[in-house]
Amino acid sequence: MEANLDDQAGEGLGYVMTQLLAAGAYDVYFTSIQMKKNRPAIKLSVLSAPSDRLALTKLILAETSTIGVRYQTWHRTIMRRHFVTATTPYGPVKIKVATYDGIIKKTPEYADCASLARIQQVPLMMVYQAALAALEQLDEEG
Amino acid sequence: MEANLDDQAGEGLGYVMTQLLAAGAYDVYFTSIQMKKNRPAIKLSVLSAPSDRLALTKLILAETSTIGVRYQTWHRTIMRRHFVTATTPYGPVKIKVATYDGIIKKTPEYADCASLARIQQVPLMMVYQAALAALEQLDEEG
Amino acid sequence: MEANLDDQAGEGLGYVMTQLLAAGAYDVYFTSIQMKKNRPAIKLSVLSAPSDRLALTKLILAETSTIGVRYQTWHRTIMRRHFVTATTPYGPVKIKVATYDGIIKKTPEYADCASLARIQQVPLMMVYQAALAALEQLDEEG
Amino acid sequence: MEANLDDQAGEGLGYVMTQLLAAGAYDVYFTSIQMKKNRPAIKLSVLSAPSDRLALTKLILAETSTIGVRYQTWHRTIMRRHFVTATTPYGPVKIKVATYDGIIKKTPEYADCASLARIQQVPLMMVYQAALAALEQLDEEG
Amino acid sequence: MEANLDDQAGEGLGYVMTQLLAAGAYDVYFTSIQMKKNRPAIKLSVLSAPSDRLALTKLILAETSTIGVRYQTWHRTIMRRHFVTATTPYGPVKIKVATYDGIIKKTPEYADCASLARIQQVPLMMVYQAALAALEQLDEEG
Amino acid sequence: MEANLDDQAGEGLGYVMTQLLAAGAYDVYFTSIQMKKNRPAIKLSVLSAPSDRLALTKLILAETSTIGVRYQTWHRTIMRRHFVTATTPYGPVKIKVATYDGIIKKTPEYADCASLARIQQVPLMMVYQAALAALEQLDEEG
Repeated sequence: MEANLDDQAGEGLGYVMTQLLAAGAYDVYFTSIQMKKNRPAIKLSVLSAPSDRLALTKLILAETSTIGVRYQTWHRTIMRRHFVTATTPYGPVKIKVATYDGIIKKTPEYADCASLARIQQVPLMMVYQAALAALEQLDEEG
Repeated sequence: MEANLDDQAGEGLGYVMTQLLAAGAYDVYFTSIQMKKNRPAIKLSVLSAPSDRLALTKLILAETSTIGVRYQTWHRTIMRRHFVTATTPYGPVKIKVATYDGIIKKTPEYADCASLARIQQVPLMMVYQAALAALEQLDEEG
Repeated sequence: MEANLDDQAGEGLGYVMTQLLAAGAYDVYFTSIQMKKNRPAIKLSVLSAPSDRLALTKLILAETSTIGVRYQTWHRTIMRRHFVTATTPYGPVKIKVATYDGIIKKTPEYADCASLARIQQVPLMMVYQAALAALEQLDEEG
Repeated sequence: MEANLDDQAGEGLGYVMTQLLAAGAYDVYFTSIQMKKNRPAIKLSVLSAPSDRLALTKLILAETSTIGVRYQTWHRTIMRRHFVTATTPYGPVKIKVATYDGIIKKTPEYADCASLARIQQVPLMMVYQAALAALEQLDEEG
Repeated sequence: MEANLDDQAGEGLGYVMTQLLAAGAYDVYFTSIQMKKNRPAIKLSVLSAPSDRLALTKLILAETSTIGVRYQTWHRTIMRRHFVTATTPYGPVKIKVATYDGIIKKTPEYADCASLARIQQVPLMMVYQAALAALEQLDEEG
Repeated sequence: MEANLDDQAGEGLGYVMTQLLAAGAYDVYFTSIQMKKNRPAIKLSVLSAPSDRLALTKLILAETSTIGVRYQTWHRTIMRRHFVTATTPYGPVKIKVATYDGIIKKTPEYADCASLARIQQVPLMMVYQAALAALEQLDEEG
C-alpha cells in the first residue's frame, strides 16, 4: 500500500506509523519525495497481509490528509527463523538464526543488546560485538 | 510508470514535470536514489490512467535521457469528494470535503488560502487557521 | 555538531538519538548522504548548548562507529514562548504561543492532541483541527 | 540561515520558497531530514546577503511553523559572469560565460531553451544540444 | 526485487551493489527510507530478468542482513539502440543512438569522455560538450 | 566547502568525487536537495585541510556546473588511531583501534574483509563477524 502526502506535517506521521504497526502492518516506512509546485512530500508505504488491507486503508484515510490509497500484491521469499540464546559478559542475548537453502545467518537482537547496555551502563556497540563473539564461539562448540 | 535517470540535470526535470502534468498525468514525483559508480540519480514516477500510458511514455522518452520506461498497474481506493465554501475574515475559501465509509475529512484549498494571503498581505498560516476555524463552526451550525 | 556515519546500521542510530536527547541535546536529526565507494550513509547532526558539547561528543564517539566529530557555533533568533489552554469538544489542549517583533503564532501541542485522540478513539486530525478552531475563538473573545 | 520544520505540511513550503526568493534570497532549498519520534521533517536553507538576514528571518518566522532560525556566515568563491548569444536552428539562445583563474565555462540558459522548445514544439534536449553545438562553433570562429 | 535494510551498515552495501551487478542484475539502486523506532534505513532495489531472480535473491539473503526479499513483475518499454563514433578534438567518442517510434536520442558515452578527459588532462565537461557538438555536425553531414 | 548543483547530471558527479578524493580531500559526499522551479538537485560537500581549499575549489569550478563555492572552517575532535592484526579462519584482517579519553573502539577494516570474502568465496558478513569474534578473543588474551 502506498500514499503520497504533501499536505501533512511530519509530527502527525510519527503518530500514524505507531498506529499502523499496532493495527497489524508488517512494516511501515516513509520515503521523501518531491511533488509539483516545489512541495517536499512523504510517501507512506505499508506492507501487510492481504486480509489486513481494508482495515489499514481505512486507518490511513482517517488519520492522514490523503484522499486516496493505491495498492499492489507482492510475492515474498522469506528465510525460516528460530532463536537461540548466547551468553555475553553483560548477560544473555537472544540470537535470531535465519536459514534458507544452505544460507545461515545469525544476528543478535538489538532490543536485548540495548537493554543490557542501559542496565550495565556500557556502549551498545560493546554489547553487540560481545554478542557476535559469543555466537561465533557457539558455532565452534556446537 | 517509473524511470531511473542518472544522466539528466535537475533543471530539465522541473520542465518535464510541468509537461507530464499538462499531458494529463494524475501525479508526478521525484525520488532521490543512488546508482552504480557513485552516481546520485532521480527516479521519476508518474501516476496516470491506463489510457494515457502510451502518450506519457513517449513524452518521457522524448524529453528525458532515459532509454527505457517500466510500468505496472495499481489498484486505488479513493474517497468521494465535493466542495463547500467557508467564510473567513480574509474572504471566502473553498473547502474540500472527502468521504469514505463513515470517514469525513475537510481541508481548506491551499491555492485559495495562498491567494487571500497575498491579497491581504498576511501570513498564509493565519488564513489557513482561520479557514479551519470557519469550517469547524460550519459543522456546529450545519 | 556533525558526524558522517557509513559503517553503522540504522538500528543503532535510533538508540543513539534517544541517548543524545536524554543527555541534553536541543535537537538531533539524521540526513541521508552518499559517500565514496557507493556507500549510502547517514549524517548525524546535534544542536546543543556550548557547555554540553564535550559530553555529547564523548557520547557520539562511544556509541557510534565514527572516529571524529566536527563542530561549529551557530547564532539563533528565537521567538518568546508561553502556553495557554484551549477547550475542545475532546478535552483541554495546551497551546504554544510564540511571539517575536509583532509576529504571533499559536500552535496546539501535538502530544496533547495525540493523547486525547487515543482516549476518545477519534482521528488525531479531528482533535487537531478542533484545537485550531478553539484557539481562533479564544482570539475573538480575548 | 537554517530552520528544521517538523510541524509544517509540504504544501505551505512551496509557497514559502517563492516568497523568500521574491524577498531577495540568493538561494532557497529543502533537505529531507529525520527527527525524533519518527518524524520525517524538512530543513529549510536560505542563502542571502548579510543585510537581508533580518527581513528573511522575520519572513520565515511569520510564514512557517518554526519558532527559531539559526544562522552563520559563509565565505564564497564566485566566478565572473557575462552573457553572449548563440544562434541555433530553433532561434537565439543566451549563453552564460563564467571565468575564474583560467577556467572558462559556457552554459546555455535553460529558460531560453525551454521557451524555444515550447514555441517550436520540439524536445528541450534537442534545443539544449543544438545550443551546445552552436557555442562550440562560436569558439572555433572566435 | 526489493528489500528494506535497517540493520546493515552502508559500507557493506557498496560491496553488495558490485556483486549484484556482476551476477547479471540490469540495475541496482538504493533509496533512503525511514523505518520504525527512529531508524534511518536503505531500500535495496534490483531490476533483473525473471530468469535471474532466484540467484539474485540468494545473493541478497547471503550478503545482506535482510531475512526477506519481495518481488514483482514490471513491463518495460525500451528504445532500440546502436552506437556510432564521433570525432572530437580530444579523440574518438562512442555515441549511443536510441530510437523509438520517431524519437531519436544521441548521447555520448560517459566512460569514453571520462577516459579522454583523464588522458588529455582537461575537464570532463569540455570533452562532453565537444562530443555533443561533434554529433550535431554528424547530423548535418549525414 | 559546499556547492549546490542543479544543472549537472549524476554521471558526472561520480567522476568528480573520484577526482576530489585523489586531490587530497578528507571526505566528499552528496546530499539530495530540492531547489526552486521543481528542480531536484545535489549538494556537493567536501571536507579538507585549509591548505588544500584553493586547489579543490578550482577543481570543483572546472569539473562541475556550479559557478560558486562557499566554505567555512570547522573544528574537529578526532580519536587517536593505530592498527593491529587479527587472525580469522579466512585469513588475517587489519583492525582499526581508536582511542579517546577512556573510550576504545575496534573495527575490522572493510577492505580486508571484502578481499578475503572474494578470495574465499564466502559472504562478506561471515568474514566480518569472524573478525569481530577474533578481536574479542584478542582482548581476553591481551
